[in-house]
Amino acid sequence: MTASREVHVVAYPRGELRGDDFAVVEVEVPEARDGEVLVRNEWTSIDAALRLRLRERAPAGYFAAFPLHAALDGIATTGVVVESRADGFAPGDWVAHAAGWREYAVVEAGREALGGVGTLRRIDVEAASPQAYLGVLGGSGLTAYAGLVHVAGLREGDVVWVSAAAGSVGLIVAQLAKLRGHRVVASAGSPDKIAYLRDELGLDAVFDYHGGPLPELLAEAAPEGIDVYFDNVGGDHLAAALAALRPWGRVAMCGAISEYGADAPVPGPDNLFLAVAKNLTLRGFRGSSYVDRRDEMESVLAPWLRDGKLAYPETVVAGLEHAPDALARLLRGDTFGKTVVRI
Amino acid sequence: MTASREVHVVAYPRGELRGDDFAVVEVEVPEARDGEVLVRNEWTSIDAALRLRLRERAPAGYFAAFPLHAALDGIATTGVVVESRADGFAPGDWVAHAAGWREYAVVEAGREALGGVGTLRRIDVEAASPQAYLGVLGGSGLTAYAGLVHVAGLREGDVVWVSAAAGSVGLIVAQLAKLRGHRVVASAGSPDKIAYLRDELGLDAVFDYHGGPLPELLAEAAPEGIDVYFDNVGGDHLAAALAALRPWGRVAMCGAISEYGADAPVPGPDNLFLAVAKNLTLRGFRGSSYVDRRDEMESVLAPWLRDGKLAYPETVVAGLEHAPDALARLLRGDTFGKTVVRI
Repeated sequence: MTASREVHVVAYPRGELRGDDFAVVEVEVPEARDGEVLVRNEWTSIDAALRLRLRERAPAGYFAAFPLHAALDGIATTGVVVESRADGFAPGDWVAHAAGWREYAVVEAGREALGGVGTLRRIDVEAASPQAYLGVLGGSGLTAYAGLVHVAGLREGDVVWVSAAAGSVGLIVAQLAKLRGHRVVASAGSPDKIAYLRDELGLDAVFDYHGGPLPELLAEAAPEGIDVYFDNVGGDHLAAALAALRPWGRVAMCGAISEYGADAPVPGPDNLFLAVAKNLTLRGFRGSSYVDRRDEMESVLAPWLRDGKLAYPETVVAGLEHAPDALARLLRGDTFGKTVVRI
Repeated sequence: MTASREVHVVAYPRGELRGDDFAVVEVEVPEARDGEVLVRNEWTSIDAALRLRLRERAPAGYFAAFPLHAALDGIATTGVVVESRADGFAPGDWVAHAAGWREYAVVEAGREALGGVGTLRRIDVEAASPQAYLGVLGGSGLTAYAGLVHVAGLREGDVVWVSAAAGSVGLIVAQLAKLRGHRVVASAGSPDKIAYLRDELGLDAVFDYHGGPLPELLAEAAPEGIDVYFDNVGGDHLAAALAALRPWGRVAMCGAISEYGADAPVPGPDNLFLAVAKNLTLRGFRGSSYVDRRDEMESVLAPWLRDGKLAYPETVVAGLEHAPDALARLLRGDTFGKTVVRI
């Protein structure tokens, strides 16, 4: 038995996350059995969409709600194998899996997790940092790549708007579109983020959504309209996109961070009829549903990452016990790039 | 000069259409000039979407609003050529065009109307009735066919729900899906319509949306869920579909009759996030945008129509002066099948 600490949910948060909705619990981790490995987790992921599972019921069709008073299954994590009783894994191997927000985990090899994205696998920490496999070479990269290329169906000449562009997914979307030669409009929620997107990434037009009525800000940034909207926000952002999209435009509906903490259902955009009028496509998706595109994504993003063409800033929070607070900060817009916890 | 009567809009209606929003006006129609034909109109079309143009401003990207005190351009119509100064057209020819809601029209050959669907063309009234080219072999057929096959991307095994199924488009969608071997759920708004859909068309499950909470009615009709929703209604119908759609389901957003008369923007569905959770696609479209599929549509529907496999009931209103009232009846749900006016 190995002593370990793990984060449990003890009460489903209402609105903003609070510290006493969570507890750090000491547990004994059993030894690995046949087909299992014992992993010492080093890095674990903080994702906006975790908020959807911090409820009595997650949205229908989505990953299940996190149970109270139990380890949180289905959070991307990387670590080092301590003990292996599974073929293909040896002590010292770096691995990625989905048994997150805890110090040690026993993981069954081959068992599907997070729709396949979180199934136990070895990672190459010579090629990229171990935490990159939680972000740019993990779920964020897959979500950005599949969403822009396969969900939105990016085509030559498309003008792209991405919201929450200083977030883990948005940063990759913006740079991927830019590297492919598109005009890229990006929005975010603070002067620092805007400065980074404009000055460091050289995007074509950037704006802070606090700066005025969203439709006007967008019209100024993209006076000719847009062809693709990569939606991380929902709500008023989606409505503004519907107004700005040109005929045959497309929305990759990735997430709706503006609604995740809402206590009651949030009405949809009141201009949805524009989808009919302009032959628009709105396509919702989960990055994990495109796990068969992971190799393709890596073949595109990994070389750019290695060559320094793809910037990938991180907000690193030290200490497992700060994971809930890191998530609260992310949901408030108070993190930058990919947010990870160094356990 | 030919004496003619035509319907004008004299005031944009608020909510329900009223008789005094329209006037029947006597005009003199000029003779055809080079490249034009003079047509004696016989049949003209009544379509729910005309309501969108009976406003100060039509939705952005849609066909323009009808101007006040002028003939209504962009309404599908069939008639007989009286005088021709255009190549390929001779007196006595039956033609379809878009200069509707009037007795006589001078139409320029080759001039694009209604996105191409209403451009002047000869029709074969041996093959089908002249009014069929306003409906099953016209815009309704194209909208139904392109929407189900190309917008929703109908695939083997799909369970299909179509709303407003006793309407011009819905009837074709329901039968097309059924003839292709799908399980078809249909909804409408009166006992007569329901009886027809169930007993005459033999659809798999039908319900009157007045019969209870829509999600419950739909769950009863399609306990395993649906894969395709052909939306003619919007509002609560779209929300119910989002809840019932299975992963990777698709919505062909054809229209939103529930919203056409609204004075203020109508909020969208409050469960749009389900599109993300279940990888759903919502695709708006206008039948007229698929005019390049017209031959394909005719090659599928015309043989079924000829062989009596495709039923196509009509509500025929006699007299041009009743066109506005026919539209009001259609918008109230008080017509059945394709609504046409015999001028």
